[in-house]
Amino acid sequence: MPTKTASIIIIGNEILTGKTREKNSEFLIDELHRLGIALRRIVVIPDDIEEIARVVREHAARFDYVFTSGGIGPTHDDLTIAGVARAFGRAVVRNARLEALIRELFGDGLDEARMRMADTPEGSELIAAEGLRWPVVVTENVYIFPGVPEILRSKFTAIRERFRTTPYRTTSVYTQEDEFDLAPRLSRLAAEHPDVEIGSYPTFGREEYRVRITLEARETAAVQSALSDLLKNLDPNRLVRIE
Amino acid sequence: MPTKTASIIIIGNEILTGKTREKNSEFLIDELHRLGIALRRIVVIPDDIEEIARVVREHAARFDYVFTSGGIGPTHDDLTIAGVARAFGRAVVRNARLEALIRELFGDGLDEARMRMADTPEGSELIAAEGLRWPVVVTENVYIFPGVPEILRSKFTAIRERFRTTPYRTTSVYTQEDEFDLAPRLSRLAAEHPDVEIGSYPTFGREEYRVRITLEARETAAVQSALSDLLKNLDPNRLVRIE
Repeated sequence: MPTKTASIIIIGNEILTGKTREKNSEFLIDELHRLGIALRRIVVIPDDIEEIARVVREHAARFDYVFTSGGIGPTHDDLTIAGVARAFGRAVVRNARLEALIRELFGDGLDEARMRMADTPEGSELIAAEGLRWPVVVTENVYIFPGVPEILRSKFTAIRERFRTTPYRTTSVYTQEDEFDLAPRLSRLAAEHPDVEIGSYPTFGREEYRVRITLEARETAAVQSALSDLLKNLDPNRLVRIE
Repeated sequence: MPTKTASIIIIGNEILTGKTREKNSEFLIDELHRLGIALRRIVVIPDDIEEIARVVREHAARFDYVFTSGGIGPTHDDLTIAGVARAFGRAVVRNARLEALIRELFGDGLDEARMRMADTPEGSELIAAEGLRWPVVVTENVYIFPGVPEILRSKFTAIRERFRTTPYRTTSVYTQEDEFDLAPRLSRLAAEHPDVEIGSYPTFGREEYRVRITLEARETAAVQSALSDLLKNLDPNRLVRIE
């Protein structure tokens, strides 16, 4: 199965100025990895229609799935819908199904600020799912999520099965050897196992190991083969554990 | 004083696959904001020379300062130096000053893995500072930092005064009013005060306020004027506090 790729676009001046801490990428990183999706980029950009349009257009062309977070709401700095529409040269239109939902939620006395929540890029798809009061808006391959962590989580969780593919297999080897000494051996291993992603993460004195080596691939056999070659070249007396 | 802009480029597969949590952007967001620098973009990209080169080239042209984090080390997946060099069409060369430092640190028995730490993009500047054992490598407007949070922090802190400019003035207004009801008033306020950045951040039931409105600018007078106009249009009975 070919690898499916993804990117995350976080939209909001409040993140870039430190007024709000960004919490959604951590959640999405772990979810996508468990689903077997290769996350290739995360970007945080300001509330600026042109900037949103440019980044969404670039990512939608390069990656299979694009997830946006933030910039959904009634105020002047909520520009994600307009930015996504502009990325694809589409108009922003009021969606009849969302309009009906808003009338259900708010009843009478609807003003323009509330009705704006029914605006979507023209031709967007709405994904309804069990337990979701509000559907997920999808424009081409761009999944539009609000920035509020609790809402993003419940929406992503409700639709995540559509993204699932072959999961990654990961093995970690912890050693007391020095990363400088390991480097040539890891370079050789990486060259001999191009289908396995080999990572090397040193610690600085506070752990019971000095380097964590990770081996990751979709095929269990590929990870096993790289692990077997790695272990032949490690000092068994300084091996801490394998997970 | 014209606004100085910045971007942060986080380099590392380990972040995108969830093996390591990204901690440096939080620190840099707060530092840059306090220094009065406008952070315009944060991006997380894989350990891939072409990708690093492309993003560094784009950011170096668009922003005044670019800060990279990660991809510095002796192993096959440490590609930041090569990527930055390629961004500017420069060679990677062994720096004599860094080579001498490595000899001081490691003494005899130097191997290629250790000597690689002296490699820099040709023509890079080295910034030495009080308390730094190792200088900061700067190529054009790109400041190259390691990914280890403790080291990045001590290096950035040692050189941060060179970036300081007029600080931002920020006032926050907390209210019990609903964001939908506030939206038209905030849009008018934003239109009447284009030099003040106006943010609106709703909460969802757990705080003593419903919306935090932020007013931010470099000129105290601009913030004061926007605040005065805002307060005229808020319900005083639902105002929680001003900070």
